Formats: sequence, structure tokens, C-alpha cells
Amino acid sequence: MSPDKRVWINGEVVGRDEARIDIEDRGFQFADGIYEVVRIYHGRPFALAAHLQRLGRSAEGIGLALRPDVTVLAREIEAFITRHAPADSMLYLQATRGPAPRNHQFPAQPAPTLLFYAKPLPPPGEPAGSTVRLLSVKDERWSRCWIKSMALLANVLAKNQALAAGADEAVFVDGPLVHEGSASNILAVREGRLIAPPAGPRVLGGITRGALVELCPRLGIEVAERPLTEQEALAAEELLITSTTREVAPVVAWDGRPVGGGVCGPVTRRLAQVLRERIEHECREAR
Amino acid sequence: MSPDKRVWINGEVVGRDEARIDIEDRGFQFADGIYEVVRIYHGRPFALAAHLQRLGRSAEGIGLALRPDVTVLAREIEAFITRHAPADSMLYLQATRGPAPRNHQFPAQPAPTLLFYAKPLPPPGEPAGSTVRLLSVKDERWSRCWIKSMALLANVLAKNQALAAGADEAVFVDGPLVHEGSASNILAVREGRLIAPPAGPRVLGGITRGALVELCPRLGIEVAERPLTEQEALAAEELLITSTTREVAPVVAWDGRPVGGGVCGPVTRRLAQVLRERIEHECREAR
Repeated sequence: MSPDKRVWINGEVVGRDEARIDIEDRGFQFADGIYEVVRIYHGRPFALAAHLQRLGRSAEGIGLALRPDVTVLAREIEAFITRHAPADSMLYLQATRGPAPRNHQFPAQPAPTLLFYAKPLPPPGEPAGSTVRLLSVKDERWSRCWIKSMALLANVLAKNQALAAGADEAVFVDGPLVHEGSASNILAVREGRLIAPPAGPRVLGGITRGALVELCPRLGIEVAERPLTEQEALAAEELLITSTTREVAPVVAWDGRPVGGGVCGPVTRRLAQVLRERIEHECREAR
Repeated sequence: MSPDKRVWINGEVVGRDEARIDIEDRGFQFADGIYEVVRIYHGRPFALAAHLQRLGRSAEGIGLALRPDVTVLAREIEAFITRHAPADSMLYLQATRGPAPRNHQFPAQPAPTLLFYAKPLPPPGEPAGSTVRLLSVKDERWSRCWIKSMALLANVLAKNQALAAGADEAVFVDGPLVHEGSASNILAVREGRLIAPPAGPRVLGGITRGALVELCPRLGIEVAERPLTEQEALAAEELLITSTTREVAPVVAWDGRPVGGGVCGPVTRRLAQVLRERIEHECREAR
């Protein structure tokens, strides 16, 4: 581990190996916390404001008072990235209700744990350059998936079920509906229009998903933010996933059968390119 | 904190303040782990074998290989309790998939984190001596509640919603069915018979619940292990919750209205007494 690795924890910047938490941290004993993953390109965070806005919504969703607040936090993150983040990396941020004698009841005077650190990533490849095979898994998660909490055990189990089946990602399905991937949103192209399931009980409001929805009108692509059925997904002209670290990736298989013609379609490619342009604009040119 | 406080962590017994975990422990970042709470009376654990058996089922449920296995673990726990546990206390045990660079994918070579420690509790009061007021909450949890995982955020939020409403415990209800409390099982007495919802997607197989079900035939109380409807619960002669730390407690209110006549009924009292006798037999007389 390089000595350059640092962790910001409760206002202090410490070496990676010193960043340890108490066994009674509520994040460890109750998954009582939230998190964000922010992609860093050219040493600059992409869509940091949107990530912190979502962090604020998640905090509200679990009744957690963030300290410092997101405005101060944004400055701390910016300063940390400038000093400690590799040019291509991700920032992982986590906030928990902190250490307290174990009890479901909220502590009377919570001392939240807030930490973030950067991890190197390979430079991004060609936009939409890697394809994705999905395994559909029954959605057995809780009904507040719009909160980005660390209660991710169901996501972890689904992801590993997909990998064990030779797929790349699990997609959560419930009855007729397709919700999202284990660590991604899913979108479909039907008759040239983008169908984007909105944030809700079983769908997280993805930042990359949100960026695409915002970009579409400029590209003359109509967007329908509404639930997606499995039948629609299977018959879609194009199917794609979005995530902070994967950006836009075409789905080429669903439970071992080709979807979207088994290749990356033109709308997906265009969206991936335009997203990358926006990333370059925000992270390179704004330097 | 008394210097006597010790934590067993990965085979070592360390001081409480030295027991710290890595920020990339999968228990902290993914709730990728399981736990048990064992009650200690007279310096002896109650129903330790049943707790460890359930730990084994939970581990299997998330594909976690426990190290050491439950046989060795039982010996370690017994030795630890003898040396370090207060006479009246609880043992908290947690096993996670351990530290690894953050990734939903299971680590190729997991190094699980296993820890346990004892915490003092007040000596138990009169059997069934404290009453419980429930607040009903829609069950929005995941569908593998038979796994005792630390993905407890929904339980934590429900419990605090109940406390905020002036109740003592939340009870999860879905459609016509009553599942369980946020940290307890719920049982009803109808026409002298005990109705005990069995372990399943939304019910944990409680150890205290299991002990009661086992005791009933000897007491001439018929048991029906089957789902319980809200209608039945509200009209029950008696309603009770069970948990390791609360043992048996009569439910006297449901959403602010009296249930079970608003007092502890005779079957509940009898069950609480007989459970306590069994505890005394196992923990005191077997010394």
C-alpha cells in the first residue's frame, strides 16, 4: 500500500492503516449509515454536487444529521482530492450514526462517523466499450432503495449469484417489473425513446442515469421516466446499464439469451459518447 | 470503561479500546455479515448451542465459511465467558466476510472477521414483569429475515418510529399478516392455544420463541406454528413478544389501543415462569 494513501475521517486526514473504526460503530452493527461513490477524472470529481445532494437526501431518509453539512463537506472533499487523489480514481464516502453502546434506539447524542478516501481506477476505456450480461434475480430487497445505505447484503448476494452464473451483473426483477442492477441502473431504448425507471422504493436515483436523462433532450432523444417491464426490456432495441464507475454499458445478454441484438446499439453509443464529453468538459476543461 | 472489558477478535483477546476494525471490512461497507446475541445468567450462557446452530444457518445463508467452526467457537466462547463475562450479561457475536478492497464480488480469499464480547445487563426482573406497547409498521424489509444479518437499518428505523410514537417496540405487518417485532418475535394465544409464526422470509427463528414452542407440550399447551393475521392478533386473548434479552413480555397495547385485555394473561405468565425455570436449570443448577 503506497504511503500516499490517506483517509479523511471525522475531520482528520490519517494514513490508510490508521483508519479504523470502533466495533460498536452503528455502521458495523446495524448498517445504520449511507454512502456515495464519486468518479474522479483528471484529478477532478465528476458530478460532485449531485452526489452530495443525494447524500443529503439519504441522510434525511435515515434521520441522520450530517456533520459537517454538505457545503463544508464539498470543500473538504475538493481539498482532499487535490492533495491525495490519483488522476483516475474514485472517492468512496461513508457516513454512519457512529459508535454507541449497541441498541436499536438512536443514541441520545450521536457522534456520527464520516469518512472518505480515494482509490485508483484504470483510466476509462472507449465509451460503451465493454458489454454486460445480466442475470435476472427476484428483487428481495427492502423498499427504500432510494436511500443509498450500506445495507447492501442483498445486492452483494445477487451480484455473486450473477457472477457464479457467468453473467456480469444481476438485475432485480419483481413480478412484471425490472427495477435496477445490483450496482447500476437499467434503461431501455424502445422506438428510439429512452425508458428510465425513476427513483423509488426499489430504484436508486443514479447520478449517471440522471445525467443521461438531462442530456437526452439536447440530443433529440425523447425520455420516458417510468417503470420498465421485463417484457419491454427483453424486446427493447437497446438495453443499457449506468453507474458511476461503469458510465454507460450496453447489455447484450439476459439470462444467457441475446438482448438488444446482442451488440451495442447506436443510441447507447451516442449516450456514452455524449456523457464522456460532458465528463471531459467538467473535469478536464474546467481545470 | 472497566479494565476487565475484553473482546475476542479473530482468536485474540484484546482490550475493548484496541478492538477496532478496518474501514474496508465488508461488515462496515456492505452489511456482509451475521450476528448473535446470547444471554448470560449466573455467568453461564443460555441456549448457546441453539444460538450457534442458528449462526451456522445464517453463515450458510450468505455463503460465509465460519472460521473457527461452531464446535471450536463454542469452546472459545465458554472459556471467554468464564474469564471475562459478568454474571448477568449478554454476549454479542459478529462474523463478517472481513476486510477486502471494496467490491460487491466476494474476495477470492476471504479473511472473515469474527468477534465477540460481553456486556453487563441488569439482573432479570420478575418473569413477564414488564409490559410492551406495539406500534405496527409496514414490513419493508428484505425477504431473507431468517438470516440474522447486520443489515438492520429497516429494523432500526422501525424501532425508533415506535419509540417516537410512545410505544416500546415496532411490529412488522404486511397485508393481513403480522411478522415479528423489530428485535423480537410475536406470538398470540387464541382459545388457549399458542400461535407462533415460523421462521421464513420475514420472520427470524427466535431462540426464545423456539424454547417456548418446545416447552408447551409439557405444559399441556397446544402450539400452532403458522402465520398470524393482524385480525387474530388484535382479537387474541393474549399477545406476547419473545427475545433473548426480554425473555417473554406481554403485549398490552397495539397502536395505542389495548390488546389481550391490556394486562399480562395467565398463559403468558406461565410461559415466562417456565422459561425462567429452564434458564435457572441450565445456567445455575448445571454449574
